Amino acid sequence: MGSERMGGHRRHEGAPRVSARAVNYRQLRHPFPPQQMFSDDAVASLHQTALRVLEDLGIRFLLPEARRLFAEAGALVDEDTQMVRIGCEIVAAALASAPRSIRLGAPDPAHAQVYEEGAMLFMGGAGCPNVTDLVRGRRPGRLADYEELIKLQSSFDVIHKMGAGVEAQDVPVPLRHLATTGAQLTYGRKVMSTGSRGRRAVQDSFDMIRLGLNLDEAAFAAQSWTVTVINTNSPRQVDQNMAEGIIDFARAGQMSIITPFCLAGAMAPVTLAGALALQHAEALAGIALAQIAAPGAPVSYGGFSSNVDMKSGAPAFGTPEHVKMQIGSGQLARYIGLPWRSAAGASSNVADMQATTETMMGLWGALMANATLTIHAAGWQEGGLSFGYEKFINDLEALQMLAELCQRPEADEAALAFDALAEVAPGGHFFGAAHTMSRYDRAFYAPLLADLSNIGSWTEAGAKTSTERATGVWQRTLADYRQPLHGQEAAERVAAFVARRTAEGGASPID
Amino acid sequence: MGSERMGGHRRHEGAPRVSARAVNYRQLRHPFPPQQMFSDDAVASLHQTALRVLEDLGIRFLLPEARRLFAEAGALVDEDTQMVRIGCEIVAAALASAPRSIRLGAPDPAHAQVYEEGAMLFMGGAGCPNVTDLVRGRRPGRLADYEELIKLQSSFDVIHKMGAGVEAQDVPVPLRHLATTGAQLTYGRKVMSTGSRGRRAVQDSFDMIRLGLNLDEAAFAAQSWTVTVINTNSPRQVDQNMAEGIIDFARAGQMSIITPFCLAGAMAPVTLAGALALQHAEALAGIALAQIAAPGAPVSYGGFSSNVDMKSGAPAFGTPEHVKMQIGSGQLARYIGLPWRSAAGASSNVADMQATTETMMGLWGALMANATLTIHAAGWQEGGLSFGYEKFINDLEALQMLAELCQRPEADEAALAFDALAEVAPGGHFFGAAHTMSRYDRAFYAPLLADLSNIGSWTEAGAKTSTERATGVWQRTLADYRQPLHGQEAAERVAAFVARRTAEGGASPID
Repeated sequence: MGSERMGGHRRHEGAPRVSARAVNYRQLRHPFPPQQMFSDDAVASLHQTALRVLEDLGIRFLLPEARRLFAEAGALVDEDTQMVRIGCEIVAAALASAPRSIRLGAPDPAHAQVYEEGAMLFMGGAGCPNVTDLVRGRRPGRLADYEELIKLQSSFDVIHKMGAGVEAQDVPVPLRHLATTGAQLTYGRKVMSTGSRGRRAVQDSFDMIRLGLNLDEAAFAAQSWTVTVINTNSPRQVDQNMAEGIIDFARAGQMSIITPFCLAGAMAPVTLAGALALQHAEALAGIALAQIAAPGAPVSYGGFSSNVDMKSGAPAFGTPEHVKMQIGSGQLARYIGLPWRSAAGASSNVADMQATTETMMGLWGALMANATLTIHAAGWQEGGLSFGYEKFINDLEALQMLAELCQRPEADEAALAFDALAEVAPGGHFFGAAHTMSRYDRAFYAPLLADLSNIGSWTEAGAKTSTERATGVWQRTLADYRQPLHGQEAAERVAAFVARRTAEGGASPID
Repeated sequence: MGSERMGGHRRHEGAPRVSARAVNYRQLRHPFPPQQMFSDDAVASLHQTALRVLEDLGIRFLLPEARRLFAEAGALVDEDTQMVRIGCEIVAAALASAPRSIRLGAPDPAHAQVYEEGAMLFMGGAGCPNVTDLVRGRRPGRLADYEELIKLQSSFDVIHKMGAGVEAQDVPVPLRHLATTGAQLTYGRKVMSTGSRGRRAVQDSFDMIRLGLNLDEAAFAAQSWTVTVINTNSPRQVDQNMAEGIIDFARAGQMSIITPFCLAGAMAPVTLAGALALQHAEALAGIALAQIAAPGAPVSYGGFSSNVDMKSGAPAFGTPEHVKMQIGSGQLARYIGLPWRSAAGASSNVADMQATTETMMGLWGALMANATLTIHAAGWQEGGLSFGYEKFINDLEALQMLAELCQRPEADEAALAFDALAEVAPGGHFFGAAHTMSRYDRAFYAPLLADLSNIGSWTEAGAKTSTERATGVWQRTLADYRQPLHGQEAAERVAAFVARRTAEGGASPID
C-alpha cells in the first residue's frame, strides 16, 4: 500500500508549464444517461397525484387575469377563494403545445444555447441579498457587486447563463430592473435573466434588450433572449407578480421556468414523494397558464425541492433527500417530455468543506437527473442568503471538471500506446517518452485553483487554503476583464431609454 | 427568484431535535447502474492491448518463485532479464478460476461482507506516513495514531473495512506487523488489512488472526479474514514482497487486490487508454499469479489510475482524468467478470474546499464505476502523505450521504401524501400536519457534522468551519469509543504469541 501516494514527488525537469489544450465548455451535453430513483410505476403515481391535486384541490391564483384565463380554458374557478381547479385535459393540452426545444439567444452569439433534453447548462448562484468575500467581508448587495458578478460570470465559459447573483439593494426598487438589465447588457455575454417583479418592469427589461441588442420585434420574439424564474408560493399558491410573469413572458416568446420551491417538512409534505407531487402539481399549473396565455410559448419545468433539517427546522441543501428529489424531478420532467431546471447550492455559512460537500452533491445529483439547467451551481452559500466570491471560484473548478467528463477519452491505436509501452523499460517512467512529449501539454485538465505542489512548496507559499487562494483568482479575473464591444454598443443604445424611464420614476412591482 | 432561499428561517417550535431514524450503512448495494466512458469496442481493444503487452512485452517479476510458477504454467520466462511473457490462455484460465463472489470475514460478524459485483464498500485512507489534526499538528505516524484511527474506523458503519490509516513509524519494522495486526484485533470490528511486507510477517499476521479470532485452519481458510493490497511497480514490474504476497495470500485463501498505481504521464502512458491498458495488463498478471499459485483463490481486480499535473509533474487525484479512468476500470473489471477496487482521495495539502472537491469527484467516480471497494474514501489528503483527522470526519459525512442514496424513497399512497396536501391551506405550511408529525423525526438524513443554523447562530457559536468543527467530532468519537468484548478476548489470545515473536526479533521484510 505504501506506494499509493506520490505527494512528495518533485516536478519533472522540462515538463511544460503551460497548457496548450483547447477546451470548449460553451455547449455541453450530459455525459451520463438519466438515472432513476423512483420506479416507472411510482413516477406515474406521482403524476396522477399531481393531476388529482390540480383537479380536486386546486391552486390559488392571486391574479384575476390568471383566473380569467383559466376559466376561459375550462378550469373551475371560485372567485371568493381565488382557487382554480384545473382538469387533466387542460394539462394535457398544455403539455402538447409546450415546446421540447427552446432557442436561447445571448448578447454574444457564441453563447447562444439550445435548451432541450440532453443539454447541460450551468448558472451561478442567484437572488442572494448579501455578498461575501475575504477582502471586503459580508455585506448587503449593491449594484457594484452585481456588476462584478456579471463580469465574473462572463469570464468563465462553463457558466452558460447570467443570473442576478446578488440583489442591488442600493438601487431603489422602481429603478433596480433598469440598472440590472443595463449591467447584463453592458458587461455580459450569456443568456440573460429578468426577474418577474411587475408588468411595467418586465416590459422595460424587454424594451432594453430589444434596444440594446438591436433586435426588431420579430427577431426578439423568434427566440428567448431572457429567462425568468417563477417561484410558486408553495403550497398551492401563485402570487400576482409570478402569474403576471408567466403570462407576459409567454406572450413575448421569452422563457419562464416554473420552479416550485418545495422544502419537504415545511412548505411541502415531509415525504419526498409528497413534496414531489406538490412540486409537480404547481409546475404543471404554471406551465398550463403559460400555454393558455400563448400556446407554444417557451416554458420550462422546474424543480428545486430539498428538505428541512429535522433538528432545527432550517432548510438544508445538498442533502441525500435533495439529490433523490433531483433525480425524481428529472424522471417527472421526462415523463411529461419537457426540458427542466434543477438547483445545487449550499447551506453552509462559509466557504468550507461542508459547503463543497453540499454543492458537489447537488451538482452530481443534477448530472444523475440530467437537468437541462442547474441554477445556483456556483457561489451560492448560506442557503442563498449570501453569494460567496471564493465559493464561486471553488465551485467553478468543480463545474469545469464535470464539463471535462463530457469529452470521452480517445481509444485509437495511438491512444492505446502499445509502442510507448514497448519503449519504456520495466520500472522506468514515461516522462521523456516520445508519446508523452507529443501530448503532454494538452493531455489533462489544467486546474483553475487546485494547488498540486507538495507540502513544502505549499507551506513556503503561505499555506493557503483553496478558499484563500480563490481571492486572488477572482481579483485577477476582474482585473483582466475586458468589456465586449457589443456591451459598449448596447450601453449606448439603452442610455436614453434608461434616462427617460428613470425620470418617469421607473416601475413599481405592483402597478 | 428571491424566495429560493431560506437561510434565515427560524427553527419551528416543537420540531423534534433527535432523530428516531434507523439507518443501516453496514451492507450497501450500488444505487446507480455502472456507467460507460469507453465504447464496448474500446473496452475490448483495451483488453486486447493488455493481452498483447503480457504476451509480447512481458512483466518483470523479481521473485524467482513467481517466475518458476509462471514457467510451469506455460509462460515464457527469461531468467536473465527476469521477464515473464504470459500467453492469453494463461490469462483465460486465471479468469475462469477466479471467484466472482468472495466472503470477507470480520472480527465482529455483523461487519462481514460479500465482495462481489454490485456491493459498495468503503475504506478510509491508508498507508499515509504522516497524520495531521488541528490539535496536534502534522507529524510522523505512531502506533498510538494507528490505534486511534482503528477506533475511529470502528465507530462509523459506513467504513466497511479497516485500513492502515497511518504508518506506525515508532515501531521497528520487524515488529510493526505484530503491533498493527494486534491493534486491529484489539480495537477493530471490520474486515482486516495486512501489508505484504515479507513472508514471515504475513505468516505472523495470519497466525495472529487465527489465534485472535479463535479460528481453526478450516475456518480461517473458508473465507478471507484479511485483505492485502498489491501495488505493482508500474510500468511492468512486480517486486519480491508483492509477488510473495500474491502467492501467500492465495494459498491461505485470503484476498489480495492487485492494484497497479498508474499515473498517466509518469509511470504510465500519458493517454488514459494507454494508462488503462498498462493497469489492465499488470492486474491480469497478478491475478494470473494468484490463480496459478492456488486456483480459485480470492483475488480482486484493482485500479488506481490518475494523472500527473502538467504544470508540475506532481500527481493529481480527483481530476476528471481520474474519474474517467475509474469508469474505464469498472468497464474492464466487468469485462473480465471480477469484483474490483477503486480509490478516491485528495491532492490538497489541507482539509479545504479543494480537498473536498477532489474527494467528491473520486467518490462519485467510484459510484459511476460501480467499484466494489473504494479505498482512501475518507481522510486521505496531501496525495496520501497525510491522514487528516478533520478530513476524515468531513469525508464521512459525504460517505453517509452517498449511503443514503442506496435507499429508495417510499412512494405508496401514504407517502404520496394527498391527504396532507388537502389538509394544508394554500400558502400554509406542513410543520404541524399530522402527516409531518408522525414522520418528522425519521424522515431525513441526520447530519454528522453539517451546521444548518443561520449565520447569526453560527457566528455566536464561534463561526467555525466544518474543518474546525470536525475536531470536536473525532475527539468525542474517541472519548465515546468502547472496546468490543471480542477485542479484549483477542488481545488476550495473541499476547503470548506476540511476546514470543517479539523476543525472536520479529520479521524482516526480506527474509
